[in-house]
Amino acid sequence: MTHKKNIKLTIEYDGAKYAGWQNQANAWTVQAELEKALGKLTGEKVTLYGAGRTDAGTHALGQVANFKTSVKLPVEKIRLAANSLLPKEIIVKSAEEVSEKFNSRRSAKTKIYVYRISLMETALQRNYTWQYLFPVNLARIRQATRYILGRKDFSSFCVAKSRQESNICNISRAVWKRSGGELTFEIEGDRFLHAMVRILAGTLLEVGREKITPAEFRKIIAARDRRKAGKTAPACGLYLKDVRY
Amino acid sequence: MTHKKNIKLTIEYDGAKYAGWQNQANAWTVQAELEKALGKLTGEKVTLYGAGRTDAGTHALGQVANFKTSVKLPVEKIRLAANSLLPKEIIVKSAEEVSEKFNSRRSAKTKIYVYRISLMETALQRNYTWQYLFPVNLARIRQATRYILGRKDFSSFCVAKSRQESNICNISRAVWKRSGGELTFEIEGDRFLHAMVRILAGTLLEVGREKITPAEFRKIIAARDRRKAGKTAPACGLYLKDVRY
Repeated sequence: MTHKKNIKLTIEYDGAKYAGWQNQANAWTVQAELEKALGKLTGEKVTLYGAGRTDAGTHALGQVANFKTSVKLPVEKIRLAANSLLPKEIIVKSAEEVSEKFNSRRSAKTKIYVYRISLMETALQRNYTWQYLFPVNLARIRQATRYILGRKDFSSFCVAKSRQESNICNISRAVWKRSGGELTFEIEGDRFLHAMVRILAGTLLEVGREKITPAEFRKIIAARDRRKAGKTAPACGLYLKDVRY
Repeated sequence: MTHKKNIKLTIEYDGAKYAGWQNQANAWTVQAELEKALGKLTGEKVTLYGAGRTDAGTHALGQVANFKTSVKLPVEKIRLAANSLLPKEIIVKSAEEVSEKFNSRRSAKTKIYVYRISLMETALQRNYTWQYLFPVNLARIRQATRYILGRKDFSSFCVAKSRQESNICNISRAVWKRSGGELTFEIEGDRFLHAMVRILAGTLLEVGREKITPAEFRKIIAARDRRKAGKTAPACGLYLKDVRY
């Protein structure tokens, strides 16, 4: 039996026109485009394992995925060859051979997402930020954000139908920054539920608009009920920034 | 005769899918989209005077244009009404009534352009920067850039066929900044020749790659010959940032 190499890819993509990361019938997905390019490159049927799914319209600065291959091509050529075959919305930033036990999702220690908000109308950033044209009290947002740190049940911030066995996540970092007319929310955790960052961003901005107090936000977490939280922020502002191993 | 108001608009646009600012037969232009929206809004045939033409693919953060209208609508409503009618790639950032003598192009004192360069491959910024994947010596670029300051004949940096009566421009500011993997070139002057910022950026990056020395760059200016300069940087990295009056 041929020994198969396990290749880890780090991928950037502009998700604006894609139906998300994961393969779906009759939809244009990032995973399918990558598997097609890697299939051509290796002459094999490639199955790619992604670290995290991203929804339609969501972007990635550092998605990670791995696949097994018998191809003789040196690993340093895989990046260039893949990029020459991929549509321009998707770029392999690096390719490296890893141990056969490496699995991009199960081996991950933490993932980092960024959510970007434009506080002004913008044409140039329309597919890359959420345009939120209300005055925002950032001190209030930061006060509420402290309550999400640590091991918590995030059922209030999860698409109800997709609930996993456990909705407990450990959030190790959650930081808001303002620069000019842009607000960014960066969050790091061991796992994330479906739409969790978007529901957190949407609800925390309601705290910023002073429709919800930080104390009420704390109660929303404790309620473990999606109906208590705010609306889901749009997918276009969300980026999978990094996966740490 | 009805008194006509003169309205000054400040406009942001994503030029990626447009054939440039200026009206052309059978092409999708920013000016045509704005004139169509303002025509609906006012019920009049609107002619819009832009401060500067931008090429296909070039963007604007602060294009300025003016038009005359008899419409009774308060000027503060024009921005909102126009934005509700415009495609999402174009935004009116402000609208104000100005003196009848104001002409967006002739009244301008200076214009400011920005050229953005990605020094790494990028999917997300592919329509918004020039991807320039060579090592760049920024000190050399800055040294050469000093030679463009002041009143000079810029014939070497002008699309040959479009030469005006005079190719003399007064460049009051030209600054390079590096931030992470991005380089930006910001330039302010009283006027710009066709493709001038793009040819300057393309040639100055060849200085950065050490294919041209700063002393040679100085001679290129003096030659007043387009054939001596470097290649034209792509339109997608260029932004009309501001027009000053």
